[in-house]
Amino acid sequence: MSQHPKKAVVLLSGGLDSSTVLAIAQGRGYDCYALSFDYGQRSHAELNAAKTVAQQLRAIEHKTIRLCLEDIGGSALTDESIDVPESAQEGIPVTYVPARNTVFLSLALGWAEVLEASAIFIGVNAVDYSGYPDCRPEFIDAFQSLANLATKVGVSGGEIIIETPLIDLTKAQIIQQGIDHNLDYSLTVSCYQADDQGRACGVCDSCRLRAQGFIDAGANDVTRYIA
Amino acid sequence: MSQHPKKAVVLLSGGLDSSTVLAIAQGRGYDCYALSFDYGQRSHAELNAAKTVAQQLRAIEHKTIRLCLEDIGGSALTDESIDVPESAQEGIPVTYVPARNTVFLSLALGWAEVLEASAIFIGVNAVDYSGYPDCRPEFIDAFQSLANLATKVGVSGGEIIIETPLIDLTKAQIIQQGIDHNLDYSLTVSCYQADDQGRACGVCDSCRLRAQGFIDAGANDVTRYIA
Repeated sequence: MSQHPKKAVVLLSGGLDSSTVLAIAQGRGYDCYALSFDYGQRSHAELNAAKTVAQQLRAIEHKTIRLCLEDIGGSALTDESIDVPESAQEGIPVTYVPARNTVFLSLALGWAEVLEASAIFIGVNAVDYSGYPDCRPEFIDAFQSLANLATKVGVSGGEIIIETPLIDLTKAQIIQQGIDHNLDYSLTVSCYQADDQGRACGVCDSCRLRAQGFIDAGANDVTRYIA
Repeated sequence: MSQHPKKAVVLLSGGLDSSTVLAIAQGRGYDCYALSFDYGQRSHAELNAAKTVAQQLRAIEHKTIRLCLEDIGGSALTDESIDVPESAQEGIPVTYVPARNTVFLSLALGWAEVLEASAIFIGVNAVDYSGYPDCRPEFIDAFQSLANLATKVGVSGGEIIIETPLIDLTKAQIIQQGIDHNLDYSLTVSCYQADDQGRACGVCDSCRLRAQGFIDAGANDVTRYIA
């Protein structure tokens, strides 16, 4: 083992996917710096979950950046006037937060530069991606190109690698990875409208994808549901 | 004149360059939505200047997003423990804020999507660019590619154009453009360590570039200096 482990910034929402990514990054021997965003989500349960997961998985540091995306609006996740849908939708859903992953990756890039980290881990997924344009592999490739041009380390011929270990996995395969890394999924919150105790509604898009994932993985669904 | 003018998001720091960009965007007939960031700058004079300039130039709206970049650190502009240099430096200067333009453009992109704006204006400049990697044309090209992949409008075959009207101009040429648009430069603040009244130190990198620009343009330097 190296005396100076490599550093990684890991985007951590506290949901199933990003928590699995943190477990994977730790498993690869990185010193992990978890990064969360308080961007006016309806539910703060996810951020509480991020804190717990970062502690449990022994991240070196967990930083939550306050970002006023509710000033920008445009999503059911940040705008109280748009309802969260409870059945499958066509096309890009109203829960899409404009340019969210671009913003998150940009801030992760800034922190990675300061830390001299060699990687940024993000839990984007092109299989069960809910129709978000900024979860596709071509988006990640474009961000990698941008990162190489935007940073001191890139200008010096180095690179901060954008790692997307979940990109080709089904929800069931993601859950299997987390179980292999002994991740306790009862700590994670995926629901778009979880209550203060982090209990899930069971009916939103995100809850339905997650529940089906546990079924498909043949795993016990440890999610805590409301009623 | 069209009944529905095109909309543009204009990144506005309150400095000389971005204020000139706002004047240019207005001159091109856009309805302008000015966007500023409170990211823990040492000086709030720039943000006050942004507010004044946005009002004077009749932006439709001026939004300031609070961003805790001082949590990330790494720059003399946000980290009190790093001194602002008062003479020319080699290479990338300590006033470089990690991934700043990437973050700012990402948030502008999110707002542009919500507004259904057709352009984002940014005052980057590759001539007097102070050595920042994220001010180069290749960085902007990479961000344009990213924007096309990251957004709903891009997925639908549309585009939000990243406009950089200053990119090839010298500071003197920028000042000439502003004067042509009747911009009152005494309202703008470029100094890295301006006082509360927006008066400039006259000795930092940014002050020296600006003062030389007025000389080269053969224009009256209306900057308000301390003492």
